[in-house]
Amino acid sequence: MATIGIILFTLVVTLAVMLGKCQKKPLSNACASFAFNTEMNNLQGYLLPQECEGYVAGYVNSGQYHSDFAVAIEAARTYLNTIEADQDGKDLIVLDIDETALSNMPYYVDHHYGVETFNGETWNAWVNNASAPALDAMLSLYTDFRAQNWSFAFITGRSKSQYNKTAQNLYDTGYTGWKTLVLRLPDEENLTADEYKSKHRKRLEEEGYRIKSCLGDQWSDCSGESAGKRTFKLPNPMYYIY
Amino acid sequence: MATIGIILFTLVVTLAVMLGKCQKKPLSNACASFAFNTEMNNLQGYLLPQECEGYVAGYVNSGQYHSDFAVAIEAARTYLNTIEADQDGKDLIVLDIDETALSNMPYYVDHHYGVETFNGETWNAWVNNASAPALDAMLSLYTDFRAQNWSFAFITGRSKSQYNKTAQNLYDTGYTGWKTLVLRLPDEENLTADEYKSKHRKRLEEEGYRIKSCLGDQWSDCSGESAGKRTFKLPNPMYYIY
Repeated sequence: MATIGIILFTLVVTLAVMLGKCQKKPLSNACASFAFNTEMNNLQGYLLPQECEGYVAGYVNSGQYHSDFAVAIEAARTYLNTIEADQDGKDLIVLDIDETALSNMPYYVDHHYGVETFNGETWNAWVNNASAPALDAMLSLYTDFRAQNWSFAFITGRSKSQYNKTAQNLYDTGYTGWKTLVLRLPDEENLTADEYKSKHRKRLEEEGYRIKSCLGDQWSDCSGESAGKRTFKLPNPMYYIY
Repeated sequence: MATIGIILFTLVVTLAVMLGKCQKKPLSNACASFAFNTEMNNLQGYLLPQECEGYVAGYVNSGQYHSDFAVAIEAARTYLNTIEADQDGKDLIVLDIDETALSNMPYYVDHHYGVETFNGETWNAWVNNASAPALDAMLSLYTDFRAQNWSFAFITGRSKSQYNKTAQNLYDTGYTGWKTLVLRLPDEENLTADEYKSKHRKRLEEEGYRIKSCLGDQWSDCSGESAGKRTFKLPNPMYYIY
C-alpha cells in the first residue's frame, strides 16, 4: 500500500510539473512578431534570429505553414476562377519556383530553418540534386489551370547554369507543359530580384502574353510592373530576398 | 492510508485530464491561416468569420497584437532614422487614424472583434464620443519625430462631418502639432480608400511636401502613388477596407 502511495505521489508531482510547463506560455511571442513583420515586408533583408529557429520549426511542423500556404492558393484559385482564359494560350500566370512551386524544406531542416547565412556551395549542391518536392497546393492549382487554357511561366532567381536540373526537378514533380522557364543570366546577377523579375515579365507581355496574376513567396517576386491585376504573397518563414 | 490513496488517485486522474486538454491543440489553425492571408492581402473584402472571434480575442488579449504592432513601428522608426528631416518642415509622414494612430478596440470588444457587419449608427456614435485611446507605440514614434523637424498628415476614411470630434480625439490623446487632417468630403464617398488617399497624398506633394513614408493598418492606406520610398503595414485582425 505504501509503495502504491509513493508511486501515486510521484505521479501527482510529475503531472503537476508537466501541467505547469504546458500552461506557462509567454503572453506574447517576439518570434511571432518577427515573423509577422517580415511577412508584412516591414522588416527587410533579415536573417532569421537564432532564438527563432524553434518558432519556425513549430510553425512548419505543426502544419500551420502548409495551412497558410493552402489558403493563399485557395484565394488565388478563387480570383483566377473569375477569369476565363482565352483559347489562344496567351493568358499567363507567372510563378516563382523556390518556396512557391518547389519546397526546399528538406534543405532548410538541415540548415536550421534559415538561421545560417546563405551558403552558395551547399545550396547549389541541393539544387543540383533536383530532388525538391512540389508544394502540393500549388501543383494542384497548376494542374487544374493548365487544363483550362492557362499558360504558365516560371521566373526564378536561380542561375542559368542550373536550367537543366531545375527543369528536371519541375518535370519530375509534375510541373509539365509550361511556356518558359527564366533563370538569371550572368549579366543579370547584379539586378535586384525585383528588377530582374519585372524585366522578364515586361518582356513576356511584349511577346504577346497577358499576365493575369503572379504568385511568389517573396514580395520581390511580383512587385513592380506587369504582374497582373492581383498578386499573391505566399508564406516563407525562413528567408528574405530583395 | 486508503483515503490518501484515493485522494492521490483522484489527483492523478484530474491532472492527467488537465494535461491532456492543455496539450491537445489542433495541429494547424484555420483562423490563423485566415488571419495570415487577410494581412497578406490575399483574402480581400472579408468579414471576420464567426468561428474566428475567439482567435482574434486571443490574439488581442495575449498581447500578440500589440507586440506585432510595436515591431512594425520599430521597423518604421529604424527606416526613418536613416533620413534627416530638413528644417523647412516639408518632410512629411502620412498616417491613417483608425487602428493606426487611435485604437477602436473598446468598440470592437463590444462588437465581437469584427464578426458583425459594419453598423454606421453605432460606429458614428463611437467616433463622436472622441474617446478612442492612442496606440502607444505610434504615439511615441509621432512624438519623437515631431521633435526632429518631421511633419505629419492624417488622412482618414472618416467623414468630413466628423472633423471636430476626430481632431479633439487626436489632441486629447497627445497627437498635437500635425500639419493637416484630411477627411472624406461627401463627393469623395464613392472613391475607394486607395483612390481617395492617393489623391490627397498627391495633392500634398503638389503643395511642396516631400512624403517619405506612409503607415496604415490597411493596404489601401498607402498603396498607389506618393507614399514615399517605404510604407509600413500595421496589423489589423478585425476588418478589411478596400
